[in-house]
Amino acid sequence: MKKRVAVLAGDGIGKEVTNAATAVLDAIGRRFQHEFEWVHGLLGGDALDQAGHPIPEETIKKCEESDAILLGAIGGPKWDHYPKELRPEKGLLQLRKHFELSVNLRPVQAYKTLLSSSPLKEEVAEGVDLVFVRELTGGLYFGEPSYHTDEEAVDTLVYKREEIERVVRFAFELAKIRKKKVSSVDKANVLESSRLWRKIVEEIAADYPDVEYEHMLVDSTSMKLITSPASFDVIVTENMFGDILSDEASVICGSLGMLPSASLRADGFGLYEPVHGSAPDIAGQNKANPLGAILSGAMMLRTAFGMNQEANAIEEAVKKVLEAGFSTGEFKSQAGKVLTTTEMTEKVINE
Amino acid sequence: MKKRVAVLAGDGIGKEVTNAATAVLDAIGRRFQHEFEWVHGLLGGDALDQAGHPIPEETIKKCEESDAILLGAIGGPKWDHYPKELRPEKGLLQLRKHFELSVNLRPVQAYKTLLSSSPLKEEVAEGVDLVFVRELTGGLYFGEPSYHTDEEAVDTLVYKREEIERVVRFAFELAKIRKKKVSSVDKANVLESSRLWRKIVEEIAADYPDVEYEHMLVDSTSMKLITSPASFDVIVTENMFGDILSDEASVICGSLGMLPSASLRADGFGLYEPVHGSAPDIAGQNKANPLGAILSGAMMLRTAFGMNQEANAIEEAVKKVLEAGFSTGEFKSQAGKVLTTTEMTEKVINE
Ligand SMILES: CC(C)[C@H](C(=O)O)[C@@H](O)C(=O)O
Ligand SMILES: CC(C)[C@H](C(=O)O)[C@@H](O)C(=O)O
Repeated sequence: MKKRVAVLAGDGIGKEVTNAATAVLDAIGRRFQHEFEWVHGLLGGDALDQAGHPIPEETIKKCEESDAILLGAIGGPKWDHYPKELRPEKGLLQLRKHFELSVNLRPVQAYKTLLSSSPLKEEVAEGVDLVFVRELTGGLYFGEPSYHTDEEAVDTLVYKREEIERVVRFAFELAKIRKKKVSSVDKANVLESSRLWRKIVEEIAADYPDVEYEHMLVDSTSMKLITSPASFDVIVTENMFGDILSDEASVICGSLGMLPSASLRADGFGLYEPVHGSAPDIAGQNKANPLGAILSGAMMLRTAFGMNQEANAIEEAVKKVLEAGFSTGEFKSQAGKVLTTTEMTEKVINE
Repeated sequence: MKKRVAVLAGDGIGKEVTNAATAVLDAIGRRFQHEFEWVHGLLGGDALDQAGHPIPEETIKKCEESDAILLGAIGGPKWDHYPKELRPEKGLLQLRKHFELSVNLRPVQAYKTLLSSSPLKEEVAEGVDLVFVRELTGGLYFGEPSYHTDEEAVDTLVYKREEIERVVRFAFELAKIRKKKVSSVDKANVLESSRLWRKIVEEIAADYPDVEYEHMLVDSTSMKLITSPASFDVIVTENMFGDILSDEASVICGSLGMLPSASLRADGFGLYEPVHGSAPDIAGQNKANPLGAILSGAMMLRTAFGMNQEANAIEEAVKKVLEAGFSTGEFKSQAGKVLTTTEMTEKVINE
């Protein structure tokens, strides 16, 4: 197959990790006879510096002409004082909205060899294998009115039925091919939007008699993610709760640098990016963990291109490298060998 | 001194734990020559069953005629299907609003002997001594419009300058007599309300040159609370973020049952309650951990009545009982002796 992919490296370590991902994907291409065309575009602070806008028209055009988007990371203190319409984050939010990337997938998996770096006790983190399905283009992130004066501020949490249905149905479909359990997270004892959410979950659950489901409050969930993370399978929730809880859960596996994500449109078109940020403090030092970006590449192969075997090959390679005791510098307990970004990428490619 | 306290036991284990707290406070009264008059009132599901409303007029009147409010816990599956205006939680929310209890304090402290029950590694949880200052009567909890139809739902996050100022100033005052560090949590890269919040924090921080402060994003905070909880001192945030993050942090010390809280009006009048819920599954079995309620009683003595010595006496007693290896049944690792609610209460009184 021949696929065109828009690569938006973004800021900080974004370039290093997307380079790592495309290198691994090129290796996959050689082995499985695919051809990937990488179309590089500007995004975030980098785009602001070079083109005056966090998401230039040209970047959107490049993405529209591609089969998928691979993203590095955006943001950094350098651009924190720009007006909000020009901040790097705005570029990302506009990208999500423009391409209607309404379903955000964030798997969290505990790798045995990395458990010693988890802040959780090993017996608590062991066996964690969950995935967040976060609504990504609604709620407080995009609701109007949204303004502040010197005296008052307003943000609006708004959801339409279709927006909730789409993401909830996605979660149940996913649970069907996983451990058959959905935890739907809301704050139905306080929020009206959560009451509609809960109602729609009930309706959709009726179509999936084989999938077990539960309603959980967001505050209890923030506890249970730490006390018994291994009890979860698929967690579905609205945009802001998903932002907070998925980041919370991301610490379980010992490093944020490990985690991939996908943001999908209804027709399957999607954006793939590591969960970690732009880490300006280590940018350009060849220290960043490329595995989050590499595993995002694997998610892209599977989800966007249906290349299951190829995706498995990458995931297996990553697992082998970790099992052999290799890791990058950010892990707390370094039993094994510490690699640079490029060394880690080489190891994965060789596997 | 003679003090009148409204006791709202509420639902589930609420009665057991408030009984424990008043027993300890009576013992303090005997030793330090104070007299506490307990005025019992209905709240929550219990009030719904007995008086048709989660917060009857009479309960409000009793609280108005008291010097402080001591609360147990409310809610339970029994009342989950009531219309929202009649749900137990609504009673609590109305109580907060009616008495303008806008500042919610939730200290989280790691007790050495309980670290083995924490889901976190002992070296991560060790030394944690932080306090949440959560805004309690604004934001998404009370903003209008707030409604849902079958097709759409809206909640509104609204803050007025004074509401933010009040709670932020409180946090800086508190930091001054603690470790002199404030972490203000917002989502300024997305929310307008967070931008006003951040601005006001800057203004108020200028009045406290001795207090170090930082702005943190809510998603990063949810991670850092787990990866390095001991780095925090005072954490100030808006209502919904405070709900999620303070519950998350509450698991650090090994049991939710240990944690007290205070909800204060500008003039110092306040409501004191354990952080834990009504735990209907163990209600009436004399198993509940009464320490959260007992420590809430200590907070009441210190904050509402200026009885520092008396509050210290309770806190010291609790520490001694824990150090002697006693605990209640909910702890994961039971090295020491497991006590019932009333036995634990006796131990504390004896100390
Ligand atoms: C950068 C920011 C706007 C974004 C979000 O809040 O969605 C990020 O935290 C994420 O989770 O992808
Ligand atoms: C019962 C509920 C309405 C309440 C809240 O969300 O404030 C509770 O979770 C709390 O934190 O006190």
